[in-house]
Amino acid sequence: MDERIAVVGLGNAGLPLAAVIADRGLKVTGIDVNRERCKQINTGLNPIPQEAGLDELIKLHGGKGLAATPDYADAKDCNVFIVIVPLFVDSGFNPDFGILEKALRSVGGILKPGDLVVLETTVPPGTTDTLARAWLEEASSLKVGDFHLAYSPERIMTGYSISRLREFPKVIGGVDEDSGLAAYSVYKKFISNLSMVSTAKTAELIKVMEGCYRDVNVALANELFKIAERLGVEFYEARSYANHQFCHIHLPSTGVGGHCIPVYPWFLIKAMEKRELFGNVRLLRTGRELNDGMIDHWTEKIVLASLKINKPLKDVKICVKGLTYRQGVKEFYHSRNLSLAKLLVEKGLNAYAWDELMSKEEVEGKGLYWLDPTEADLIFDCFTLKIVCR
Amino acid sequence: MDERIAVVGLGNAGLPLAAVIADRGLKVTGIDVNRERCKQINTGLNPIPQEAGLDELIKLHGGKGLAATPDYADAKDCNVFIVIVPLFVDSGFNPDFGILEKALRSVGGILKPGDLVVLETTVPPGTTDTLARAWLEEASSLKVGDFHLAYSPERIMTGYSISRLREFPKVIGGVDEDSGLAAYSVYKKFISNLSMVSTAKTAELIKVMEGCYRDVNVALANELFKIAERLGVEFYEARSYANHQFCHIHLPSTGVGGHCIPVYPWFLIKAMEKRELFGNVRLLRTGRELNDGMIDHWTEKIVLASLKINKPLKDVKICVKGLTYRQGVKEFYHSRNLSLAKLLVEKGLNAYAWDELMSKEEVEGKGLYWLDPTEADLIFDCFTLKIVCR
Repeated sequence: MDERIAVVGLGNAGLPLAAVIADRGLKVTGIDVNRERCKQINTGLNPIPQEAGLDELIKLHGGKGLAATPDYADAKDCNVFIVIVPLFVDSGFNPDFGILEKALRSVGGILKPGDLVVLETTVPPGTTDTLARAWLEEASSLKVGDFHLAYSPERIMTGYSISRLREFPKVIGGVDEDSGLAAYSVYKKFISNLSMVSTAKTAELIKVMEGCYRDVNVALANELFKIAERLGVEFYEARSYANHQFCHIHLPSTGVGGHCIPVYPWFLIKAMEKRELFGNVRLLRTGRELNDGMIDHWTEKIVLASLKINKPLKDVKICVKGLTYRQGVKEFYHSRNLSLAKLLVEKGLNAYAWDELMSKEEVEGKGLYWLDPTEADLIFDCFTLKIVCR
Repeated sequence: MDERIAVVGLGNAGLPLAAVIADRGLKVTGIDVNRERCKQINTGLNPIPQEAGLDELIKLHGGKGLAATPDYADAKDCNVFIVIVPLFVDSGFNPDFGILEKALRSVGGILKPGDLVVLETTVPPGTTDTLARAWLEEASSLKVGDFHLAYSPERIMTGYSISRLREFPKVIGGVDEDSGLAAYSVYKKFISNLSMVSTAKTAELIKVMEGCYRDVNVALANELFKIAERLGVEFYEARSYANHQFCHIHLPSTGVGGHCIPVYPWFLIKAMEKRELFGNVRLLRTGRELNDGMIDHWTEKIVLASLKINKPLKDVKICVKGLTYRQGVKEFYHSRNLSLAKLLVEKGLNAYAWDELMSKEEVEGKGLYWLDPTEADLIFDCFTLKIVCR
């Protein structure tokens, strides 16, 4: 089969994938709602410069092997549709399928018998074979069987996506056996370390389980960190010797932010609680609450340190250093650092913020006061977790 | 310094250590309350045959470089005392320091200025510098400073203790700097992969943290296993692909038994709850409860499978296969398999038990009815977690 591949969604996950496919010599149509981004890609310019190796690939293939377009009609001759658009969650961590539904219905609009659709967006297990299937079938008036449908979770990590795609194990599973086989044979052309699993739902759960492992283990690190503090033991020293080939205690933090790790446990928590199986997700829920509650722990520590400064507490200038959800990535979704800064203000403390990636105006745009750390009485560094009084 | 080493406690952890020290050419006096065991060792016979490599060492050194005795007076010329006796916990998981106190007071009775005492028994962090120190000081009328006191957690694993002692990283920490240095220099003579940490309490916490990592991660595996079951996904398949260099999802089980993993989290839970810091141990407590509650999950599964058998439920012969806390080790402390068998009986089911390591009489000695699995209508294998109906 001669594959003509459409990649729907040219974001942090989609663009590296589209570029890697084009680099394998396959013809790729990239679809993205952002016209500016499409233009940029077509002139060979990389819109995600922090992604190692991507500059080169976009320069080589942008506008040629990889043609970007905001228009689904431009992909009507494609026979493989890879959907890798964002899935946001609301403040109660309920997924908002809006973007995904729109993308899948648009794909459905140009879907032909014999085509293959592969979803890569991380979703609650079961989504591909229920919601995604229904949207595609409705919009195309075709049935699974007429077309193939599979799921393969993206496993990229911002900054390392190209190497991950080239080396990291990737799984793919179909909603039926034919779909699985069809998807595997296509993906094998551009993913070297690929495994087929028995169902799409299995592939969906694999991705979510990884996130749960991370979240619960960060929670464990945070809990052990608090315990070590109370016992008067240096946590990092203990951790460095506790860890070995069978022990992987993670690093403590202000909590877990971003679009991935803090979201995935909720997919399972909500799936089980909907079935009234509250007891089935107690550990996941406790881990989530523990991580989200770390900002209270740090607030307490900051207040205790502030009390030692020879000024009325309300006058102690506190600077929260680092607002992005992780260091070096200018993203704020569920950033616990941002929440910590806001919590300090809410508690009536004289709190300010600073971030190496943000201007004064950008900090103020987040509803906080900006302060150069050198002018603060107390600095809390969100990434090193160090409190420095001046 | 010419070391003359006493190892107090020649059990599963102490005897391999004593044998490894003797094998390094150091003179070892082994002390154990069990006279029979001492005699056996002195005639070159290994009382722990399942311990790989131990036969050879006991044959070589028993009664010679390693002289076993029930009498502390025989060790009065020793200048290094390594204490590695069991610490049991009561049914509420409160440590019973009885054996440890007796051993340390006995060591105190023969302790001389300049001697070194190293505790290896896993204990609640802080024990060496509080309880152990007090017992030694009282019994010896000496003070730390006159003698050295340190802690180095045993990290053996039944069956692999010799290789663990020879290769696995081991830590040691003193109650003061001199003690740490003295202990390090002695241990370095027989432990190749040795690190000194800043305090005895740090070394104590290192061991307990490892146990907590294991316990919480088994709990996570059990929770994900139950979720996968409800979602209709094969857990083991998903796990095998979810795991990679950054993801280490453990195996599900009937819970966690034995003297170690299920006990250590309680050391921290009780230490924090005593300080009214209930919020500091929520994850550890949830993990413990989840693991201990797995027998309810398996009971439910066994009942559901039994209902499909064409007999009144009360007549379905259920055989629990495997009663030891783990396969191949004839130990029952906090065995969840034993608890599961008892729970089934308690619920009025027609439940029996069988174990490859136990005679009919031994099974009955545990308060259960014995049944050959071939005569059961339903077999639950505690180690493979498989339910087989016949």
